[in-house]
Amino acid sequence: DIKDAVLAFFRRKQAEVGSLAGCRVLVTAGPTHEPLDPVRYLANRSSGQQGFAIASALADAGANVLLVSGPVSLSPPAGVKYLVCETAREMYALVMESGQFDVAVCTAAVADWRPAHEAGQKIKKIGEADVAPPLTLVPNPDILAELSTKSAGRPKLVIGFAAETENVIDHAKAKRERKGCDWIVANDVSPHTGVMGGQDNQVVLITSDNVEQWPRMSKADVAKQIVERITVWISEER
Amino acid sequence: DIKDAVLAFFRRKQAEVGSLAGCRVLVTAGPTHEPLDPVRYLANRSSGQQGFAIASALADAGANVLLVSGPVSLSPPAGVKYLVCETAREMYALVMESGQFDVAVCTAAVADWRPAHEAGQKIKKIGEADVAPPLTLVPNPDILAELSTKSAGRPKLVIGFAAETENVIDHAKAKRERKGCDWIVANDVSPHTGVMGGQDNQVVLITSDNVEQWPRMSKADVAKQIVERITVWISEER
Repeated sequence: DIKDAVLAFFRRKQAEVGSLAGCRVLVTAGPTHEPLDPVRYLANRSSGQQGFAIASALADAGANVLLVSGPVSLSPPAGVKYLVCETAREMYALVMESGQFDVAVCTAAVADWRPAHEAGQKIKKIGEADVAPPLTLVPNPDILAELSTKSAGRPKLVIGFAAETENVIDHAKAKRERKGCDWIVANDVSPHTGVMGGQDNQVVLITSDNVEQWPRMSKADVAKQIVERITVWISEER
Repeated sequence: DIKDAVLAFFRRKQAEVGSLAGCRVLVTAGPTHEPLDPVRYLANRSSGQQGFAIASALADAGANVLLVSGPVSLSPPAGVKYLVCETAREMYALVMESGQFDVAVCTAAVADWRPAHEAGQKIKKIGEADVAPPLTLVPNPDILAELSTKSAGRPKLVIGFAAETENVIDHAKAKRERKGCDWIVANDVSPHTGVMGGQDNQVVLITSDNVEQWPRMSKADVAKQIVERITVWISEER
């Protein structure tokens, strides 16, 4: 539509003159779906909104943005290169095949595990016995950890996200150490917060030497603040 | 909007003079989501479109329609009473609390199984070992079978749906016998058919004495045909 066309025009200009002009940024977003069979899958409640808002804000600052998303019901932001996938393995492949980035912002709620076997046909109830099929899970590739520990071509700044429901800061600090990323943006996604699928977010930014509690604000404002921080970091780096 | 207001007005008139005026019909639709923890859930690819189309077509014929749906991204049809839920157990409770119906059309892709335990907090990866948590499934309540075998107040006509990926007719015939419903509408939902989430459907109508292969058509047309059959059945019954 017209709004998108204007936005895309503005963002093309920003790509020449914006504060992040020339900066290649990867954003991952959304959930992944992990099939059990042709009909059933494991999912999570990520809506993709925070990641899409960050991709938009990055494009506003003139960055060259690749947004890789799992299944969501959102339209891709204007002026952003957009790839969609379903599973963690597909997202991993898209990210690893997409070349080098200056910054990676990994907001996607990548499934930690997937069913060990994807049945080729719909799994049927076994007779009258109502016996449930065994469901064995295996770990998925860890996109954030792989990006963070790349021996060649690691993004200069890797930002992970941590969706927690308890001990948010402790879990997020541990995640930052474990994955090897530079910053973690942590949030409490307990149902009572309304964060998953909602318009607002309340995050904690965790860096190597700091823990910052941000006030509750819209996901668009969280995105602007994160991009502001990235811009400062990049300018100090240059 | 205006279209919905006109439709609702038409349907209110039809509720007095339509071929299904005075007929109470239950329609279930969509998938169910079965939580593992506050973030993760088991899901299936049902979009709810076929069930919503049937609810619409029933309202066009003047039926008094209750549509009970799992999580979908569709707007409820005009002039239809609409209840939403997430899990199979919630859908079961809504259906069982909603009184008596002349006809039940059970299109919902109710999860056969759910995780035995729903964790109160997000399940964490266990240390560095990448050990997946055990996931034990237990059977969900069977809404179609319960409706079909109600000792008192059974709907006069209970129509089940069967989403299969192989041996469609054999599986659907067996399902009709096992559940005790009157008709089964069976379809092949293998990925190559594009039925799950798509606009079209190709169904087989299975009754006690007949197996009818219908041609591929829009889900709206499948809905009209099914409602036509219900109307004929009701008129013979009266």
